[in-house]
This record gives sequence, C-alpha cells and structure tokens, in this order.
Amino acid sequence: MADPWMTSEAAVQRLGVKPETLYAYVSRGIVQSERVPGSRRSRFLRADVERLAARQRGGGGRAGGLEVIIETELTKLDPSGELAYRGWDVVDAVADSTFEEVASWLWHGTRERKKFEASPPMTETAGRIAAVLKDQPVMDRLRAAIAAVRATDAFRDDRRPEAVAGAGRAIIATLIETLPRIGEAESPNASVAARLWPRLSKQPARPRLVRLLDATLVLLADHEMAASTLAARVAASTWADPYLVELAGLATLGGPLHGAASSSTRELMRETIATSPAEAIGARLRENQLIPGFGHRVYKTHDPRAVILLEMLAAVRRDPVEEELMTIVRDRGLPFPNVDFAIAAFAERYNMIDDAGEVIFAIARTVGWLAHAIEEYRYRLRFRPRAIYTGASLTSSR
Amino acid sequence: MADPWMTSEAAVQRLGVKPETLYAYVSRGIVQSERVPGSRRSRFLRADVERLAARQRGGGGRAGGLEVIIETELTKLDPSGELAYRGWDVVDAVADSTFEEVASWLWHGTRERKKFEASPPMTETAGRIAAVLKDQPVMDRLRAAIAAVRATDAFRDDRRPEAVAGAGRAIIATLIETLPRIGEAESPNASVAARLWPRLSKQPARPRLVRLLDATLVLLADHEMAASTLAARVAASTWADPYLVELAGLATLGGPLHGAASSSTRELMRETIATSPAEAIGARLRENQLIPGFGHRVYKTHDPRAVILLEMLAAVRRDPVEEELMTIVRDRGLPFPNVDFAIAAFAERYNMIDDAGEVIFAIARTVGWLAHAIEEYRYRLRFRPRAIYTGASLTSSR
Repeated sequence: MADPWMTSEAAVQRLGVKPETLYAYVSRGIVQSERVPGSRRSRFLRADVERLAARQRGGGGRAGGLEVIIETELTKLDPSGELAYRGWDVVDAVADSTFEEVASWLWHGTRERKKFEASPPMTETAGRIAAVLKDQPVMDRLRAAIAAVRATDAFRDDRRPEAVAGAGRAIIATLIETLPRIGEAESPNASVAARLWPRLSKQPARPRLVRLLDATLVLLADHEMAASTLAARVAASTWADPYLVELAGLATLGGPLHGAASSSTRELMRETIATSPAEAIGARLRENQLIPGFGHRVYKTHDPRAVILLEMLAAVRRDPVEEELMTIVRDRGLPFPNVDFAIAAFAERYNMIDDAGEVIFAIARTVGWLAHAIEEYRYRLRFRPRAIYTGASLTSSR
Repeated sequence: MADPWMTSEAAVQRLGVKPETLYAYVSRGIVQSERVPGSRRSRFLRADVERLAARQRGGGGRAGGLEVIIETELTKLDPSGELAYRGWDVVDAVADSTFEEVASWLWHGTRERKKFEASPPMTETAGRIAAVLKDQPVMDRLRAAIAAVRATDAFRDDRRPEAVAGAGRAIIATLIETLPRIGEAESPNASVAARLWPRLSKQPARPRLVRLLDATLVLLADHEMAASTLAARVAASTWADPYLVELAGLATLGGPLHGAASSSTRELMRETIATSPAEAIGARLRENQLIPGFGHRVYKTHDPRAVILLEMLAAVRRDPVEEELMTIVRDRGLPFPNVDFAIAAFAERYNMIDDAGEVIFAIARTVGWLAHAIEEYRYRLRFRPRAIYTGASLTSSR
C-alpha cells in the first residue's frame, strides 16, 4: 500500500501548483499536513492531495480549472438530455407557453403575460445612443444603451423579485428597440418575438416564423452556469442593480469562447454551400478544430433544445444543406447537433443579420441572468475570491 | 471518539445545504460516502464533511460563502499591513514612481512611462457619448463610453501583455476624457493624475495635490480579489477583449456593497461638521451599522494605503474634522481608518464631485482588472461554475 503521506515536492507536482499554493491549502484546512518526525520538513496527506487533484481534473480534464458550485432552484439540466425551468420541462414550456410567460416563471415562479415595455425616458435615451452609434457593431450598441438607460429607472435598487422582473421587461424592450428595424413594422402590442423578428430579418414575420423565434428564446432563457451567468451572479453579489447585472452578463458573453459559437456554425454552413459538406468539415478536422455546432459539455446523447428547434424547422421545410451536414457528421461518429447548429440554421434560412445568434442569446439569457441575480440578492457579498501570491519578492529599498 | 461516519441528515444539517447538494459533493469526490452495511442508507465521512464546513465558514463566518482560490503573480497582501505589486512594496512605489510606471509594472513587469492616450476616433466617439449623456450619472457615462469605443480599436483581440497594456492606456485616457472638466485646463502632455484633477475639483491643480492624487491611484491599482476583479477575470476567461473586461469590472464596481464605501464616509464627515463626531458615530452605532471608513476584511492592525495617504494629507495641512473622527474612533477601541477614509478626506478637503471616490477607484483599478485579464488569458474557459438544482419537480403534462 502506498505511503499515506507525500513530500511537498510530490504534492506540488501532483497538483500542478506552486509551493505557496500548497501551503495556502494547508492553512485553509483543505490539505492536512504534519511535521516529519525528527525532521524540519512537512509531509502532506495523500488522500487530501488526490481528492483535490481529482476535483481539478473534473469536468473536462483541463488542468488548473476553477470549480465553483452554486445551488439554484432555477434550472435542472441532466446529461441524459432533460432541461427544466423550476421543474417545468422545456418540451412542455415550448408547446404550451410563450417567452414572456417563461420569463415570469423563472423570475418569480408565476406565469404572467405582462407587456415587455420600457418607459418613455428610457426609450428616448436608448434611441439617442442608437443614433450616435449607428455605425458601431450591434452588440456594442446594446451594451452602451443598457449603461445609458440605467439612471432613468429611479427604482432600480428595488431587489424584490417582482421589481427585478419589471426591470427585466424594460431591459429586454430596450435591447429590442436599440436594434435598427430592417423588416416590416410590427404592431405596438406585439410579443417580444414579433417585435424582434423585423430587427433580425427583412423577410415578412409569418406567424410560424415568429413562433419559431419565440421557441428559440424560451429554450435559451437559462442553462448550465455559463461564464456570463457567473459574472452576472458576481455582480449581483455586490447588490448591483439589474442594469449592471445585465451589463456584466453582456460583457462576458462578448468573449470569442462564449458568444461566438453560432457565428462559426454559420460560416461552416456557408462553406458547405460554397464547397461541399465533406470539404467544410474536413477543413476543420485538418486544423484540429472542433466542428462548430456539434457536441456539448454536459449533454451526452442529444441537446434537447436542438431537437425541438430542428423539428420545428423541418416542419416549415426541409433544408438539404442542414441535412447533408448532419448526416455526414453522424455517419463519421462525430457528436450530435447542438443548439448553436439549430440557431445557425434558423439564421441562415431567413438571411438574418450577422450578429443574430448573439443578439437572440443576449435577449433570451437576460431572463436567466436576472433570475440568478434574484437568487443572489438574498446574500451579501457571498463570493469570497482569495488570491494566492505566487510571484517573486523584491528587496525593499528601505 | 466520535463515529467516523455521519448520517445524511446530520451531514446536510452540518453543511447547511440540501440533500441534492450533498449527493453532488459525493459524485464530485468532495465527500466520501458508503452504503451502511445491511441497509439501503448511505453514510458520509465525518472528516470530509467537517473540512467542507470549515471552508464554508472561513474568511468571515458567513454561511454558504463561495470560496474561489486563484493563483496570482501580481499583488501580495499581508494581514500585517504589507502590500506589494510583483514584489514592489507600495511604500517604495509611491515614493519613487508614478501611476503610469506602476501600471506598466503590473501589466508586463517593466517600468515604462508611455503616454496614456486614446486614438482620435476613440476620443471622438467617447465625446459624442458624453454629450448625449451629459445629464446622466458620471459612472453610467463612463460605462457607456467604454462600450461605445470598443470597436474603434481594431486590434482589441491582441491578448499579448504589451497589447493589453496599450488598450489599458487608451481605456484610462477615455475614462478621463469622458468626465466633464470643471477646473482649469491642463497641458496636453500632463500625467494621468494632472489630467484627472480638473475633472474632480474646481480648485487649482497645485503640484502637491496632483502628487497626492497620483499616490492615491498607485495605492488603488490592485488589491485582494475584490468582486469586480473576479468578474473581470471571469470575462477574461472567455477571451473577452480588454474593453469588455473593463465593462465587467465597472458593472460590478457599481454595486452598493462594493464601490460606494467612500461616499458613505463622506456623509459621515459632513454629519460630523453639521453635528459632532460623537453624534455622527453614535447614529451609526444606534442603527447597528459599521462605521464607514474604518476596519478591513484582511488587514488586522492598519491599512497601509490609508497610512501613506493620511500622512501626505497631514503634510499639506492638518484637518480638525478628520482628526476628531479618528481620535474618537480610536479611543473607543473601534477599528483603524482604511483607504476609503483617506479618499473621503481627500475628496471633502478639495470639494471634489460626488462620485469622485468611485471615479478614482475605477481609473486606478482598471490597471488591476487588465493585469488579471493578462494572467487569465493564458487559460481557456478556466472557470467551471456548476449549478446544483435544489428546486422542485413538476409532473410533466405529457
């Protein structure tokens, strides 16, 4: 049997950390240590080191990962392909409900159909930002607009769930209004999906397509703790108001490893048309890339969101490019299509604006960011990040 | 000796979590469990549960805290009152250097005196935002400006340290230029502190005061992993560019539990003048509040930043209100003055704008946020937040 103790050299190597970090683990009670009898050296309990090493490897094998475990009553995600909001399976939510109802369900546990609207001063402020930034990227315009409209809401620090829901409805209305309309004007009492459609596509807002966009928003409203949701919760832990929480989420979503997945999938589809599915996929394999739009970190066999959306898309009409791509990927034993694939397919079919995927994601996930903020507002500064200094010392000049 | 095993009820109660969370700890190897021989129940290793309970209590006694431990080569902070940037004690940094040099030292480990300036298109875009939002709160204007100028930097995704430093200089210049000037115009080649001064105070920018502002910026450039720094690192983990990292930091700083401390201290000082130090402090004790501007979560005996700034302020002139407040707090055995007290004193003396404390903090800490981003850019999506669902199940309708 192995020695139950390890030397500091062995422990440091096993964990891939610096000696300072090992000692910090000891002082925080994470790793037990004791003096080697008759020596000045310490030894470290192997079981503790191995447990820590296993946690660092967990969830994908990346070394030095930082795991944060957060309890939530919002969304249950099962690797087998189940996704439910407060116990409401998304299959049912898409079939029986709308984005507006799902939002109120996630925010405060009741299904309401309140209109999503911004106050006149908020709309006016967002309009001025949109005009000044009309040549800037769409997502930058949305971020600037949220920063700008914050002060028009005098009750922004009311952190009760119903009040945060009101701010959330105003934020989503502001995001939509800040996007330039390229299609036909919608009726002023239209749903979120009906108001969003003519800002994504020039094609007429047929009921079936608006229904598809509404389903997409429902399916993206919340999910696993993505980086943007963690940033939103960290902001909320300082009791930052919903506009600031939204801004933290939008800023983090902008990272190329986070919000850009559906854009890469659209590129794959365009290459498929320009060359062939085999060539487009072969090019990614040659560069050792993942195939964008396929596979998932948590789901093992299928992404339930993609299953629903691809069924709805196929019911409108079947598309040979999408089908060829899915067939060739499946035949080669590569992973299943994920929600980014479905969104890219939707966007390509209706010639949506380039940033459509990120815009749809941002509007839908606003619901999740604020629902997580409502959970986090119960605590005061719950996140306790600690830095362990592993750098050098200089000799002081005095 | 206590039983080495605990029942699930006892473990759940000890940890203050739901049973689902306990099982998640087991499945992730954090708590060891086994079947009770001859029974269908599980039991849980007491040592693991106690270790976890001790970690949850660590760092302040708040239940359910979320500890994230991050290695850094940037800033060493010692409870005894030592603060050093890459081994450079801040006492020396303030005496021998400037904010510009400290920024380049934190960003890439060399002391440089490059000018902090924004490109003409960046300045022009920020100017238009400042004009549109001239009646909005100062901090909202800064956030909107950063969102707006991002796309004017075509090289924003260059994540090498020197390139991030260049973006950092442009961001800080933009923050300053977005603030309206209320004092005398400075020379265009002036330092960051000299350009910032006339935007905080109408009083002439005497060299001694600019030196004090520069020292304040140096002392706030980086610190313990505050919530805003964690948010900045989470954004950087998705390879979000420096402008987005800045936005995540600024959004989180806006929370009343984070960025508002020096404002509360200024209120205390004004009340001290209007009534008396005893009455002003007595009122906070009566409402069971902390005394704003005193004490610190990490430092035990003194805040080195406050010591330096209060010495510099006293060398300019002694102030009876500050001294009375510090004396009465010390005589009653309450904690030592912290950096928020020093900043509030500085701001009150020179009649700075209301948000001066948060503005100074935001400009100084931009250095730290981007230095942490440079460290985080080495990894890909290192933060792995996991949600544990603790809510109810609904019966599916199908």
